[in-house]
Amino acid sequence: MLILSENDVKQSLSMREAIDVMEQAFITYAKQDFIMPDRIFSQVKEEDTFLLMPCYVDDCIGLKAVTSFPSNNERSEPVTQGVIMINDRETGTPIGLMDGTLLTAIKTAAVSGVAMRYFKKEATTIGLIGTGLQGLYQLLAAIESTEAEKIYVYNRTPEKIEPFKKEFHKLTNQTVEVVTSDTVEQLIHNSEIIITATTSLSPVIPNDATLYKGKLVVGVGSYKENMRELPEELFKSAAYYVIDSEDGKRECGDIIDPIQSGWVENKNIVLLSDLIIGNRNYEPSSEEPIIFKTVSMALFDALIGNYVYKKAQEQNVGVVVEI
Amino acid sequence: MLILSENDVKQSLSMREAIDVMEQAFITYAKQDFIMPDRIFSQVKEEDTFLLMPCYVDDCIGLKAVTSFPSNNERSEPVTQGVIMINDRETGTPIGLMDGTLLTAIKTAAVSGVAMRYFKKEATTIGLIGTGLQGLYQLLAAIESTEAEKIYVYNRTPEKIEPFKKEFHKLTNQTVEVVTSDTVEQLIHNSEIIITATTSLSPVIPNDATLYKGKLVVGVGSYKENMRELPEELFKSAAYYVIDSEDGKRECGDIIDPIQSGWVENKNIVLLSDLIIGNRNYEPSSEEPIIFKTVSMALFDALIGNYVYKKAQEQNVGVVVEI
Repeated sequence: MLILSENDVKQSLSMREAIDVMEQAFITYAKQDFIMPDRIFSQVKEEDTFLLMPCYVDDCIGLKAVTSFPSNNERSEPVTQGVIMINDRETGTPIGLMDGTLLTAIKTAAVSGVAMRYFKKEATTIGLIGTGLQGLYQLLAAIESTEAEKIYVYNRTPEKIEPFKKEFHKLTNQTVEVVTSDTVEQLIHNSEIIITATTSLSPVIPNDATLYKGKLVVGVGSYKENMRELPEELFKSAAYYVIDSEDGKRECGDIIDPIQSGWVENKNIVLLSDLIIGNRNYEPSSEEPIIFKTVSMALFDALIGNYVYKKAQEQNVGVVVEI
Repeated sequence: MLILSENDVKQSLSMREAIDVMEQAFITYAKQDFIMPDRIFSQVKEEDTFLLMPCYVDDCIGLKAVTSFPSNNERSEPVTQGVIMINDRETGTPIGLMDGTLLTAIKTAAVSGVAMRYFKKEATTIGLIGTGLQGLYQLLAAIESTEAEKIYVYNRTPEKIEPFKKEFHKLTNQTVEVVTSDTVEQLIHNSEIIITATTSLSPVIPNDATLYKGKLVVGVGSYKENMRELPEELFKSAAYYVIDSEDGKRECGDIIDPIQSGWVENKNIVLLSDLIIGNRNYEPSSEEPIIFKTVSMALFDALIGNYVYKKAQEQNVGVVVEI
């Protein structure tokens, strides 16, 4: 069995590759050429949970196992920790185990990268709200999938921005300017693409449709029913609402709320996969916002895990253990 | 993360210890001091399946992930392959991964060992039907939990018996005689405990209640709805039917069939855990058979996995990898 640490994963996968793998993953999703059992989401203690996401696709059995422990906020351990295990689909044999924490951040960013490449590959300005690990990789995906020259960042806690900028410049060779925005309004005004990467329970951008005309808004952060980053008027002003996963309609407040409140009609919710394979058509006008929301799914984790496993094996990265 | 191969597991756990851990596990089960989400059982391709069994107990998150691939019968790989992963319940961090194939055989045998110790620790004769890996470990559990001096073995395919005997004597120092029985009837006649460890869809012992008076019948093999090793008259002649898991009532043909056919009343199905902690009482007479059936559960896997993890760590067994 091949064991891959966070560093091994980083070494085996560029952001460009990750975006390409996710573009292929959207095609696989559209063709429904996979088996994805319902995930197990359960309480370990108090607010701390364990999530199991299996998917069988191509030549692999993929399993992501993630703990989400808010109680770790009082400790040094990260809140989210996970692994991805790969078994051979032909024989069932477990063949790979890798760090899933960083890989999840890369994958989630790569999914946004596919949307940015699809809708706004010519964009030169990006705005990011929320400067955590997720935001960091979202920016790496943005510079890979667009013509980004200037990036605006905002955080509720401004002290977090300088260390974030340093970390970002460490991770990329591209010359791109990163500018602190003092207000969210300023950031939106300056950016063609606006990425929200927070775990907010209520909207983090203003409820004013006029601000978003012709812009792409990418919602990344909210992943639970009670979380919502995007505001009512944004949804009402868009012709379509583009999402990555049909299951998002029952998992995520940013999709559940707009449907239940009637801000978006179900028929106007479009899967990015359907746009990519040409099953549906959407030509956004410059008078409306484009909204993309990712909740991800086990299929994406299985495909990126399988890719990393194969790549690492080719390059002799990682540790082989007997099990 | 500590990685333990099959050999490391073998080195870290004696059968005696496994039986003791399982006895404690029955007490934990009776006290309901654990969280056990529904398992995910799903098809990977054709008859090949993947099973995920999580359980949170003591200081661990335990997860058993097992593939069952009948298609491997045409290959050199084993049909069943699995791992057990242990995460720290306090922080969520993944800390151990071990071979789950052998450990499952040891654990299943240890569960039978608890029942044999409880009902028949003075037995000197054991009969085993089915000489696979499971049967091998059942015998090791039998000699640990009884006064076994003579063991009778039967297999539908007699050529498998000699290699089985050799393998058995390799695994134990105890002087115990292993004798081939030419017929199942002969085996039953000679044995105080009869263990069935096959994957048969229909009974492997005769449908004649007079054969089993005063004996303990341990059903191990059947684990699916369509499998049944034990016959109608056996069930009808027993005062109680002792099982290890409440969930067995919807998982296993050897429990489903007797209930649905009315051979056993639900009130006469007793959990071994309830006997062990004295919640219920059962004094078998020498005129009736005692029947014990194990289907096991994620709780047992988590507890044995956690025990092996800690023991291996203490003894510096296994390989530590960064993940």
